[in-house]
Amino acid sequence: MNDNFSYLKAKYGELWKSYIQHEFVLRMKEGSLPRDSFRYYLIQDSKYVAEMLKALTAAAANAMDDKVSSFLTRVLISKDKGREVHNNLLAKLGIEENEIKRTRYSLVNFAYTRHLLLSSKSWDSFIFAWTPCMVGYHEVGKIVKDSEDELYREWASFYASDEYRERSDAILKELNSITMTEYLESFFENSVRLEILFWESSLRQSELLFR
Amino acid sequence: MNDNFSYLKAKYGELWKSYIQHEFVLRMKEGSLPRDSFRYYLIQDSKYVAEMLKALTAAAANAMDDKVSSFLTRVLISKDKGREVHNNLLAKLGIEENEIKRTRYSLVNFAYTRHLLLSSKSWDSFIFAWTPCMVGYHEVGKIVKDSEDELYREWASFYASDEYRERSDAILKELNSITMTEYLESFFENSVRLEILFWESSLRQSELLFR
Repeated sequence: MNDNFSYLKAKYGELWKSYIQHEFVLRMKEGSLPRDSFRYYLIQDSKYVAEMLKALTAAAANAMDDKVSSFLTRVLISKDKGREVHNNLLAKLGIEENEIKRTRYSLVNFAYTRHLLLSSKSWDSFIFAWTPCMVGYHEVGKIVKDSEDELYREWASFYASDEYRERSDAILKELNSITMTEYLESFFENSVRLEILFWESSLRQSELLFR
Repeated sequence: MNDNFSYLKAKYGELWKSYIQHEFVLRMKEGSLPRDSFRYYLIQDSKYVAEMLKALTAAAANAMDDKVSSFLTRVLISKDKGREVHNNLLAKLGIEENEIKRTRYSLVNFAYTRHLLLSSKSWDSFIFAWTPCMVGYHEVGKIVKDSEDELYREWASFYASDEYRERSDAILKELNSITMTEYLESFFENSVRLEILFWESSLRQSELLFR
Protein backbone atom coordinates (compact mmCIF):
# COMPACT_ATOMS: atom_id res chain seq x y z
CA MET A 1 0.00 0.00 0.00
CA ASN A 2 1.60 3.19 -1.08
CA ASP A 3 -1.05 5.65 -0.09
CA ASN A 4 -3.54 6.25 2.69
CA PHE A 5 -6.62 6.01 0.53
CA SER A 6 -5.73 2.58 -0.87
CA TYR A 7 -5.05 1.40 2.66
CA LEU A 8 -8.38 2.75 3.92
CA LYS A 9 -10.35 1.33 1.02
CA ALA A 10 -8.75 -2.07 1.51
CA LYS A 11 -9.40 -2.03 5.25
CA TYR A 12 -12.93 -0.65 5.08
CA GLY A 13 -13.88 -2.15 1.72
CA GLU A 14 -17.14 -3.76 2.84
CA LEU A 15 -18.20 -0.62 4.66
CA TRP A 16 -17.29 1.54 1.67
CA LYS A 17 -19.37 -0.68 -0.60
CA SER A 18 -22.37 -0.43 1.78
CA TYR A 19 -22.08 3.32 1.36
CA ILE A 20 -21.47 3.61 -2.40
CA GLN A 21 -23.89 0.87 -3.40
CA HIS A 22 -26.53 1.64 -0.80
CA GLU A 23 -30.15 0.85 -1.68
CA PHE A 24 -30.78 4.60 -1.89
CA VAL A 25 -28.12 4.90 -4.62
CA LEU A 26 -29.23 1.83 -6.57
CA ARG A 27 -32.84 2.99 -6.51
CA MET A 28 -31.79 6.42 -7.80
CA LYS A 29 -30.02 4.64 -10.61
CA GLU A 30 -32.99 2.45 -11.53
CA GLY A 31 -35.37 5.38 -11.04
CA SER A 32 -37.45 3.65 -8.36
CA LEU A 33 -36.52 5.92 -5.47
CA PRO A 34 -39.69 7.67 -4.23
CA ARG A 35 -39.63 11.42 -4.86
CA ASP A 36 -40.48 12.04 -1.20
CA SER A 37 -37.34 10.26 -0.04
CA PHE A 38 -35.26 12.30 -2.45
CA ARG A 39 -36.93 15.53 -1.34
CA TYR A 40 -36.23 14.62 2.29
CA TYR A 41 -32.65 13.80 1.36
CA LEU A 42 -32.11 17.04 -0.58
CA ILE A 43 -33.25 19.23 2.31
CA GLN A 44 -31.06 17.37 4.82
CA ASP A 45 -28.15 17.50 2.37
CA SER A 46 -28.57 21.28 1.98
CA LYS A 47 -28.34 21.67 5.74
CA TYR A 48 -25.31 19.39 5.76
CA VAL A 49 -23.52 21.36 3.05
CA ALA A 50 -23.98 24.64 4.93
CA GLU A 51 -22.29 23.21 8.05
CA MET A 52 -19.67 21.42 5.98
CA LEU A 53 -18.62 24.73 4.43
CA LYS A 54 -18.31 26.23 7.93
CA ALA A 55 -16.16 23.27 8.95
CA LEU A 56 -14.02 23.62 5.82
CA THR A 57 -13.34 27.32 6.40
CA ALA A 58 -12.72 26.79 10.13
CA ALA A 59 -10.24 24.01 9.40
CA ALA A 60 -8.56 26.15 6.75
CA ALA A 61 -8.42 29.15 9.10
CA ASN A 62 -6.70 27.00 11.73
CA ALA A 63 -4.08 25.78 9.29
CA MET A 64 -3.77 28.47 6.64
CA ASP A 65 -0.61 28.18 4.59
CA ASP A 66 0.20 27.92 0.87
CA LYS A 67 -0.72 24.25 0.68
CA VAL A 68 -4.12 24.80 2.29
CA SER A 69 -4.72 27.87 0.17
CA SER A 70 -4.06 26.09 -3.11
CA PHE A 71 -6.25 23.18 -2.02
CA LEU A 72 -9.08 25.58 -1.20
CA THR A 73 -8.80 27.19 -4.63
CA ARG A 74 -9.02 23.81 -6.35
CA VAL A 75 -12.09 22.87 -4.35
CA LEU A 76 -13.94 26.16 -4.52
CA ILE A 77 -13.35 26.71 -8.23
CA SER A 78 -16.20 24.31 -9.13
CA LYS A 79 -18.59 25.54 -6.45
CA ASP A 80 -20.77 27.60 -8.80
CA LYS A 81 -21.55 24.68 -11.07
CA GLY A 82 -22.57 22.58 -8.08
CA ARG A 83 -24.75 25.34 -6.71
CA GLU A 84 -26.41 25.81 -10.10
CA VAL A 85 -27.39 22.12 -10.35
CA HIS A 86 -28.46 22.11 -6.70
CA ASN A 87 -30.62 25.24 -7.02
CA ASN A 88 -32.20 23.86 -10.15
CA LEU A 89 -33.22 20.70 -8.31
CA LEU A 90 -34.53 22.64 -5.33
CA ALA A 91 -36.67 24.77 -7.67
CA LYS A 92 -38.05 21.72 -9.46
CA LEU A 93 -39.09 20.21 -6.12
CA GLY A 94 -40.51 23.50 -4.86
CA ILE A 95 -38.03 23.74 -1.98
CA GLU A 96 -37.30 27.30 -0.83
CA GLU A 97 -34.46 28.53 1.34
CA ASN A 98 -36.92 29.13 4.12
CA GLU A 99 -38.11 25.53 4.17
CA ILE A 100 -34.52 24.33 4.47
CA LYS A 101 -33.90 26.68 7.41
CA ARG A 102 -37.15 25.70 9.13
CA THR A 103 -36.66 21.95 8.73
CA ARG A 104 -34.97 20.25 11.66
CA TYR A 105 -32.04 17.84 11.51
CA SER A 106 -32.38 14.07 11.61
CA LEU A 107 -30.29 12.44 14.35
CA VAL A 108 -27.71 11.22 11.84
CA ASN A 109 -27.40 14.60 10.14
CA PHE A 110 -27.07 16.27 13.53
CA ALA A 111 -24.34 13.78 14.48
CA TYR A 112 -22.57 14.10 11.13
CA THR A 113 -22.47 17.90 11.10
CA ARG A 114 -21.28 18.06 14.74
CA HIS A 115 -18.62 15.47 13.88
CA LEU A 116 -17.40 17.55 10.91
CA LEU A 117 -17.41 20.79 12.89
CA LEU A 118 -15.41 19.16 15.70
CA SER A 119 -12.97 17.59 13.25
CA SER A 120 -12.15 21.08 11.92
CA LYS A 121 -10.05 21.85 14.99
CA SER A 122 -7.24 20.34 12.97
CA TRP A 123 -6.73 20.35 9.20
CA ASP A 124 -5.66 16.71 9.20
CA SER A 125 -8.67 15.36 11.06
CA PHE A 126 -10.97 17.48 8.90
CA ILE A 127 -9.48 16.00 5.72
CA PHE A 128 -9.96 12.46 7.04
CA ALA A 129 -13.53 13.25 8.12
CA TRP A 130 -14.39 14.94 4.80
CA THR A 131 -12.90 12.43 2.34
CA PRO A 132 -15.76 9.89 2.41
CA CYS A 133 -18.25 12.57 1.36
CA MET A 134 -16.05 14.17 -1.30
CA VAL A 135 -14.63 11.04 -2.90
CA GLY A 136 -17.67 8.84 -2.34
CA TYR A 137 -20.03 11.23 -4.13
CA HIS A 138 -17.89 11.03 -7.27
CA GLU A 139 -18.24 7.24 -7.24
CA VAL A 140 -21.98 7.51 -6.53
CA GLY A 141 -22.37 10.07 -9.31
CA LYS A 142 -20.81 7.69 -11.83
CA ILE A 143 -23.31 4.99 -10.81
CA VAL A 144 -26.39 7.23 -10.95
CA LYS A 145 -25.54 9.38 -13.99
CA ASP A 146 -27.38 7.12 -16.46
CA SER A 147 -30.49 6.82 -14.30
CA GLU A 148 -33.88 6.19 -15.92
CA ASP A 149 -35.11 9.22 -13.96
CA GLU A 150 -34.30 12.64 -15.38
CA LEU A 151 -34.10 14.35 -11.99
CA TYR A 152 -31.70 11.79 -10.53
CA ARG A 153 -29.67 11.97 -13.73
CA GLU A 154 -29.40 15.72 -13.29
CA TRP A 155 -28.41 15.32 -9.64
CA ALA A 156 -25.67 12.83 -10.57
CA SER A 157 -24.39 14.86 -13.54
CA PHE A 158 -22.53 17.21 -11.22
CA TYR A 159 -20.90 14.56 -9.05
CA ALA A 160 -19.91 12.47 -12.08
CA SER A 161 -18.42 15.49 -13.89
CA ASP A 162 -14.75 16.16 -14.59
CA GLU A 163 -15.02 19.32 -12.55
CA TYR A 164 -16.10 17.31 -9.52
CA ARG A 165 -13.44 14.69 -10.18
CA GLU A 166 -10.84 17.43 -9.80
CA ARG A 167 -12.19 18.19 -6.35
CA SER A 168 -12.15 14.53 -5.47
CA ASP A 169 -8.57 14.21 -6.75
CA ALA A 170 -7.54 17.28 -4.77
CA ILE A 171 -8.74 15.87 -1.48
CA LEU A 172 -7.17 12.48 -2.22
CA LYS A 173 -3.83 14.17 -2.83
CA GLU A 174 -4.26 16.03 0.45
CA LEU A 175 -5.25 12.85 2.32
CA ASN A 176 -2.24 11.01 0.97
CA SER A 177 0.13 13.78 2.04
CA ILE A 178 -0.76 13.32 5.72
CA THR A 179 0.93 10.84 8.04
CA MET A 180 -1.86 8.56 9.12
CA THR A 181 -2.60 7.60 12.73
CA GLU A 182 -5.27 5.47 14.43
CA TYR A 183 -6.85 8.67 15.60
CA LEU A 184 -7.13 10.11 12.07
CA GLU A 185 -8.38 6.79 10.75
CA SER A 186 -11.31 6.94 13.19
CA PHE A 187 -12.52 10.19 11.55
CA PHE A 188 -12.60 8.44 8.19
CA GLU A 189 -14.39 5.35 9.47
CA ASN A 190 -16.98 7.33 11.43
CA SER A 191 -17.77 9.43 8.35
CA VAL A 192 -18.30 6.36 6.16
CA ARG A 193 -20.73 4.99 8.78
CA LEU A 194 -22.50 8.33 8.94
CA GLU A 195 -22.85 8.37 5.13
CA ILE A 196 -24.49 4.93 5.23
CA LEU A 197 -26.91 6.03 7.95
CA PHE A 198 -27.57 9.25 6.02
CA TRP A 199 -28.91 7.25 3.05
CA GLU A 200 -30.81 4.94 5.39
CA SER A 201 -32.50 7.73 7.30
CA SER A 202 -33.48 9.36 3.97
CA LEU A 203 -35.03 6.12 2.74
CA ARG A 204 -36.95 5.68 6.00
CA GLN A 205 -37.57 9.44 6.29
CA SER A 206 -36.56 9.41 9.97
CA GLU A 207 -38.12 11.91 12.35
CA LEU A 208 -36.56 15.38 12.31
CA LEU A 209 -35.88 16.28 15.92
CA PHE A 210 -32.86 18.54 16.20
CA ARG A 211 -32.29 22.19 15.56
CA MET B 1 -41.58 33.48 34.51
CA ASN B 2 -38.76 34.78 36.63
CA ASP B 3 -36.05 32.40 35.62
CA ASN B 4 -34.77 30.55 32.57
CA PHE B 5 -35.33 27.08 33.96
CA SER B 6 -39.01 27.66 34.77
CA TYR B 7 -39.46 29.06 31.28
CA LEU B 8 -37.74 26.07 29.66
CA LYS B 9 -39.63 23.54 31.75
CA ALA B 10 -42.93 25.19 30.89
CA LYS B 11 -42.10 25.35 27.19
CA TYR B 12 -40.61 21.85 26.93
CA GLY B 13 -42.74 20.23 29.64
CA GLU B 14 -43.92 17.27 27.56
CA LEU B 15 -40.44 16.61 26.26
CA TRP B 16 -38.97 16.89 29.75
CA LYS B 17 -41.53 14.37 31.04
CA SER B 18 -40.66 11.93 28.20
CA TYR B 19 -37.09 12.13 29.44
CA ILE B 20 -37.59 11.95 33.23
CA GLN B 21 -40.37 9.37 33.11
CA HIS B 22 -38.99 7.33 30.26
CA GLU B 23 -39.78 3.61 30.21
CA PHE B 24 -36.12 2.95 31.06
CA VAL B 25 -36.50 4.98 34.27
CA LEU B 26 -39.84 3.49 35.27
CA ARG B 27 -38.54 -0.02 34.73
CA MET B 28 -35.50 0.74 36.88
CA LYS B 29 -37.89 1.89 39.58
CA GLU B 30 -40.09 -1.21 39.40
CA GLY B 31 -37.03 -3.43 39.07
CA SER B 32 -38.08 -4.92 35.71
CA LEU B 33 -35.30 -3.40 33.60
CA PRO B 34 -33.21 -6.26 32.13
CA ARG B 35 -29.68 -6.30 33.52
CA ASP B 36 -28.28 -6.38 29.99
CA SER B 37 -29.92 -3.07 29.14
CA PHE B 38 -28.51 -1.54 32.29
CA ARG B 39 -25.06 -2.93 31.55
CA TYR B 40 -25.23 -1.50 28.04
CA TYR B 41 -26.38 1.81 29.50
CA LEU B 42 -23.64 1.94 32.12
CA ILE B 43 -20.85 1.44 29.58
CA GLN B 44 -22.26 4.09 27.23
CA ASP B 45 -22.76 6.41 30.19
CA SER B 46 -19.13 5.93 31.27
CA LYS B 47 -17.98 6.94 27.80
CA TYR B 48 -20.35 9.91 27.92
CA VAL B 49 -19.04 11.10 31.29
CA ALA B 50 -15.42 11.05 30.08
CA GLU B 51 -16.26 13.36 27.15
CA MET B 52 -18.55 15.48 29.28
CA LEU B 53 -15.67 16.19 31.68
CA LYS B 54 -13.52 17.23 28.71
CA ALA B 55 -16.29 19.54 27.54
CA LEU B 56 -16.69 20.98 31.05
CA THR B 57 -13.00 21.76 31.40
CA ALA B 58 -12.76 23.16 27.85
CA ALA B 59 -15.76 25.42 28.48
CA ALA B 60 -14.27 26.51 31.81
CA ALA B 61 -10.87 27.17 30.22
CA ASN B 62 -12.53 29.39 27.61
CA ALA B 63 -14.34 31.42 30.22
CA MET B 64 -12.26 31.18 33.38
CA ASP B 65 -13.11 33.84 35.93
CA ASP B 66 -14.17 33.85 39.60
CA LYS B 67 -17.74 32.92 38.81
CA VAL B 68 -16.71 29.92 36.70
CA SER B 69 -14.11 28.90 39.24
CA SER B 70 -16.56 28.85 42.15
CA PHE B 71 -19.08 26.93 40.03
CA LEU B 72 -16.43 24.34 39.18
CA THR B 73 -15.58 23.90 42.86
CA ARG B 74 -19.22 23.32 43.77
CA VAL B 75 -19.60 20.74 41.01
CA LEU B 76 -16.33 18.89 41.50
CA ILE B 77 -16.60 18.70 45.28
CA SER B 78 -18.99 15.72 45.07
CA LYS B 79 -17.16 13.94 42.29
CA ASP B 80 -15.50 11.34 44.52
CA LYS B 81 -18.78 10.08 45.92
CA GLY B 82 -20.17 9.71 42.39
CA ARG B 83 -17.09 7.86 41.22
CA GLU B 84 -17.24 5.54 44.23
CA VAL B 85 -20.85 4.52 43.50
CA HIS B 86 -20.09 4.24 39.80
CA ASN B 87 -16.99 2.07 40.30
CA ASN B 88 -18.91 -0.14 42.68
CA LEU B 89 -21.58 -0.75 40.06
CA LEU B 90 -19.01 -1.41 37.35
CA ALA B 91 -17.32 -3.98 39.57
CA LYS B 92 -20.60 -5.70 40.39
CA LEU B 93 -21.35 -6.03 36.67
CA GLY B 94 -17.80 -7.14 35.86
CA ILE B 95 -17.10 -4.14 33.66
CA GLU B 96 -13.42 -3.18 33.43
CA GLU B 97 -11.90 0.07 32.18
CA ASN B 98 -10.63 -1.76 29.15
CA GLU B 99 -14.09 -2.92 28.13
CA ILE B 100 -15.38 0.65 28.31
CA LYS B 101 -12.50 1.87 26.13
CA ARG B 102 -12.97 -0.94 23.60
CA THR B 103 -16.73 -0.57 23.32
CA ARG B 104 -17.88 1.70 20.50
CA TYR B 105 -20.38 4.51 20.74
CA SER B 106 -24.05 4.20 19.78
CA LEU B 107 -25.16 6.83 17.26
CA VAL B 108 -26.99 8.83 19.91
CA ASN B 109 -24.03 8.78 22.32
CA PHE B 110 -21.71 9.81 19.48
CA ALA B 111 -24.09 12.67 18.60
CA TYR B 112 -24.54 13.70 22.25
CA THR B 113 -20.84 13.80 23.10
CA ARG B 114 -19.98 15.72 19.87
CA HIS B 115 -22.81 18.14 20.70
CA LEU B 116 -21.44 18.72 24.22
CA LEU B 117 -17.87 19.14 23.01
CA LEU B 118 -18.97 21.69 20.38
CA SER B 119 -21.12 23.55 22.90
CA SER B 120 -18.02 24.06 25.06
CA LYS B 121 -16.73 26.77 22.72
CA SER B 122 -18.74 29.09 24.93
CA TRP B 123 -19.53 28.79 28.64
CA ASP B 124 -23.14 29.84 28.08
CA SER B 125 -23.94 27.28 25.41
CA PHE B 126 -22.21 24.58 27.45
CA ILE B 127 -24.36 25.38 30.50
CA PHE B 128 -27.53 25.19 28.39
CA ALA B 129 -26.38 21.91 26.79
CA TRP B 130 -25.38 20.37 30.14
CA THR B 131 -28.39 21.32 32.27
CA PRO B 132 -30.72 18.53 31.09
CA CYS B 133 -28.21 15.89 32.16
CA MET B 134 -27.31 17.48 35.49
CA VAL B 135 -30.74 18.54 36.65
CA GLY B 136 -32.65 15.68 35.03
CA TYR B 137 -30.58 13.00 36.77
CA HIS B 138 -31.49 14.44 40.17
CA GLU B 139 -35.18 14.10 39.27
CA VAL B 140 -34.62 10.60 37.89
CA GLY B 141 -32.64 9.65 41.01
CA LYS B 142 -35.57 10.65 43.23
CA ILE B 143 -37.89 8.41 41.18
CA VAL B 144 -35.60 5.37 41.18
CA LYS B 145 -34.14 5.56 44.71
CA ASP B 146 -36.78 3.25 46.22
CA SER B 147 -36.50 0.66 43.45
CA GLU B 148 -37.29 -3.00 44.18
CA ASP B 149 -33.88 -3.78 42.70
CA GLU B 150 -30.86 -3.28 44.93
CA LEU B 151 -28.52 -2.40 42.09
CA TYR B 152 -30.82 0.25 40.66
CA ARG B 153 -31.40 1.58 44.18
CA GLU B 154 -27.65 1.94 44.59
CA TRP B 155 -27.34 3.67 41.20
CA ALA B 156 -30.06 6.16 42.12
CA SER B 157 -28.76 6.79 45.65
CA PHE B 158 -26.06 9.10 44.30
CA TYR B 159 -28.29 11.13 42.00
CA ALA B 160 -31.00 11.47 44.66
CA SER B 161 -28.49 12.55 47.33
CA ASP B 162 -28.16 16.01 48.87
CA GLU B 163 -24.62 16.17 47.54
CA TYR B 164 -25.90 15.74 44.01
CA ARG B 165 -28.73 18.20 44.63
CA GLU B 166 -26.09 20.83 45.36
CA ARG B 167 -24.56 20.21 41.94
CA SER B 168 -27.96 20.44 40.34
CA ASP B 169 -28.71 23.68 42.22
CA ALA B 170 -25.34 25.10 41.19
CA ILE B 171 -26.01 24.60 37.51
CA LEU B 172 -29.54 25.98 37.83
CA LYS B 173 -28.15 29.12 39.44
CA GLU B 174 -25.64 29.38 36.62
CA LEU B 175 -28.32 28.80 33.95
CA ASN B 176 -30.54 31.46 35.47
CA SER B 177 -27.71 34.00 35.52
CA ILE B 178 -27.37 33.90 31.70
CA THR B 179 -29.40 36.04 29.31
CA MET B 180 -31.28 33.52 27.24
CA THR B 181 -31.44 33.55 23.45
CA GLU B 182 -33.09 31.30 20.82
CA TYR B 183 -29.62 30.00 20.05
CA LEU B 184 -28.92 28.99 23.66
CA GLU B 185 -32.39 27.50 23.98
CA SER B 186 -31.61 25.14 21.09
CA PHE B 187 -28.72 23.61 23.07
CA PHE B 188 -31.11 22.82 25.91
CA GLU B 189 -33.80 21.35 23.67
CA ASN B 190 -31.34 19.24 21.69
CA SER B 191 -29.88 17.81 24.91
CA VAL B 192 -33.31 16.83 26.24
CA ARG B 193 -34.01 15.01 22.96
CA LEU B 194 -30.63 13.30 23.15
CA GLU B 195 -31.35 12.18 26.73
CA ILE B 196 -34.62 10.58 25.59
CA LEU B 197 -32.88 8.78 22.71
CA PHE B 198 -30.10 7.75 25.10
CA TRP B 199 -32.62 5.81 27.26
CA GLU B 200 -34.29 4.44 24.16
CA SER B 201 -31.11 3.18 22.57
CA SER B 202 -30.15 1.53 25.89
CA LEU B 203 -33.51 -0.25 26.09
CA ARG B 204 -33.19 -1.44 22.49
CA GLN B 205 -29.42 -1.97 22.84
CA SER B 206 -28.73 -0.22 19.53
CA GLU B 207 -25.75 -1.24 17.46
CA LEU B 208 -22.44 0.28 18.53
CA LEU B 209 -20.85 1.71 15.41
CA PHE B 210 -18.70 4.72 16.22
CA ARG B 211 -15.30 5.14 17.73
